[in-house]
Formats: sequence, structure tokens, C-alpha cells
Amino acid sequence: MGKVIVNITITADGYSAGANQTEKRPFGDDGGDGWGDRLHSWMFENADENRAEIDQMTIAKAYVMGRNMFGPVRGEWDRQWNGWWGDNPPYHTPVFVLTHYPRDPQPMDGDTTYHFVTDGIESAVAQAREAAGDGDVTILGGATTINQGLAAGLIDELRLHIVPLTLGAGTRLFDGVPPLNLEQVESKTASSVTHVTYRVLS
Amino acid sequence: MGKVIVNITITADGYSAGANQTEKRPFGDDGGDGWGDRLHSWMFENADENRAEIDQMTIAKAYVMGRNMFGPVRGEWDRQWNGWWGDNPPYHTPVFVLTHYPRDPQPMDGDTTYHFVTDGIESAVAQAREAAGDGDVTILGGATTINQGLAAGLIDELRLHIVPLTLGAGTRLFDGVPPLNLEQVESKTASSVTHVTYRVLS
Repeated sequence: MGKVIVNITITADGYSAGANQTEKRPFGDDGGDGWGDRLHSWMFENADENRAEIDQMTIAKAYVMGRNMFGPVRGEWDRQWNGWWGDNPPYHTPVFVLTHYPRDPQPMDGDTTYHFVTDGIESAVAQAREAAGDGDVTILGGATTINQGLAAGLIDELRLHIVPLTLGAGTRLFDGVPPLNLEQVESKTASSVTHVTYRVLS
Repeated sequence: MGKVIVNITITADGYSAGANQTEKRPFGDDGGDGWGDRLHSWMFENADENRAEIDQMTIAKAYVMGRNMFGPVRGEWDRQWNGWWGDNPPYHTPVFVLTHYPRDPQPMDGDTTYHFVTDGIESAVAQAREAAGDGDVTILGGATTINQGLAAGLIDELRLHIVPLTLGAGTRLFDGVPPLNLEQVESKTASSVTHVTYRVLS
């Protein structure tokens, strides 16, 4: 059976997104224009240097994400929102979106299908594991969804990409999660990011 | 003029000490016996591997620490408490202790003298800078004192030692500090700790 992996970029103070997220500013008060550019510049401006970590993000055979990461629609699905990633999302596998509001599966180009899961994180991870077969499942975020997975003991490995800024407010990894014993299995440095991989022991 | 450096061990979720600190458990609910062994095992169990970082901790020509790091006495100095570090502390320089309660300087063996500063972090850092001459000042902690220094723009460099556990509660680095722009100047990995050095840009 594959692993359940988290892959997320956080600030030095642990935030994956700023406060006050909106459709026009999905990363909220991120110190920039709200599109998370400062958080993710390591992927775009330094792609060659961080190739292994970037490639690792797309090897999962199924994904889980929270509804706030999927999009800005709240409450009922009163308009056709198919994620931030266009007609051909970079996942090419089933993606399980946690929501309180039922919706039919949404097939996209390139073998990505969004499935909407209304019965909680355990169910979403179980469905993703089933879809992934022997492959890995990646929980993409946001931090709220990851924290639910950590609190429920569902996560095997944390791949954190720590960037040199602080936000002071927003959505924070580990918030509300009981103390964890971790094992540092890898730590790598690049020019503007530190990659740390932890195995979750308990 | 030297730099003002922070040198502190934190958990993956940013805590330098757990909640509920007491004299018998100065690191509080740290997942161990309250003496911070899990936080600091990288220094003791893996000293050879981390020699450069350990040596770097004792090169300052003056130190600043908060009263809660200095000891468990609260309120007036109603008993003779001379720090956790015995008669010959490892500092061998002036150490400026932030407190609301005046006390005469306390000379110790080995050229360490504890000075008690009652007029705030700016004053403590200014006095330490004066004492350090061209040398560096290190702010040792706790996180509350460091956060005051960060909020006041007094800190040039953060040397963080990130260890593989989370605490979920306690004294947290960056709490209450406005957003910071950092520059990652060094990042090093060891078997059970990740060392990251940031320059504070603004």
C-alpha cells in the first residue's frame, strides 16, 4: 500500500496562506498580490534547483484537497466552479475535494476527475487510497484539511517547504493538532527554501 | 559594530518551550520530563555532528535573556536565584536579564555577570551592544523576549534549530510579531535537526 503524503509550502511561522482569502486573492494577505507568489517563488523562479521537489508533487496516484483550496465558492454549488487549475489540471488522477455540499463528479481533461466528498477526511483519504492502489496519496492542503488529517492520524509523511518570510496570521499548519512525534527523514536546502521531510511516528 | 543574533531551538510548529513551566519543569509540557531534553537532544546526543552550531552559540560578547529563561522566580527577587547554569555559567560575558524588578548586578565565576534591566528590550539590547563592543550580541530567549526584539526591529539574524516534534502549545516564536521579510542565508541539515539562518530584512 502507498503512503499518505502532505506536500505544502509554509512560511517560517507556519502559515500556508494569509488571512482574508477571496476569489481575487486566494492566498489572502500574503504580503503580495494575494496569489501566493512569495510563498511559491521557489517553484517558479528556482525551478531547476528544486526540480526533485517539484516533480515529487505530481507523482501521487490520487489527491485530497479542502474546498477552500479548490475554490472560493462557499455554501451550495450555485455556480460552475472547476478549480483554479483550468481545463487540464496538473493532477491527471482522481482528486477528492472535501465539502459539506454534495456535487456530482466533475471530469476534466487529462484524466483528472474531481470527486466531492461530504462525509469527512477519513472518507476522503480512504477513497483516495482506494483510487491510488499501490501508489501514494497526496493531501495538497490547505492547512485546515491537513490539520484534520494529522489529528485523525491519517498522514504518514510531511513534506514541508519552508520559505523565508512570516505572515503573522492566516491558515497555519499544525493548529489544533495534538503533539506529534516526527522523524526527520530528509532535509535539503536550496537558495530560498528549506525542504524538510518528516515521517509521522505518532 | 557586531550583529544582534537570535539562537534558539524550536519545534516544527514553532515552540521553544511547552505550556505550564515550573521550577521543576522549566520547559513545561515538552513531551518529556520538562527539561527540554527532546528539544535539545541534537546538542547532546549529536554534538559532534552539530559542533559548528553549538560553538556558534557561545561566541557572543554579550547576551540578553528574558526573566523566565533566567529562572522561575516571579515578582520581587525574594530569594537568591542565580540562573539555571551553576556558579560558572557558559557565557563568560555580561548577560542582560529583562525583568520588571530591580536587582544589583550578580557576578559569577568565569567572568559572567548577570545585569538586571528594568526598562525594556531596547535598553537591554543597547546595553548588550555597548558591552559587546565590536562583537556580536546573542538574544538567547525565551521566545517571548525574542518576539519583543523582533517586533522592535532590533534583531539582525535568526539562527533557528528546528527539531522533529510538535508541542501544540507553549511559548512560540513569532507570536504577535508583524510580518517579516527574511533572507535565507544558510540552511544545514543534520540527522535530527535542521539549522536555518535568516537575515531579518524588515
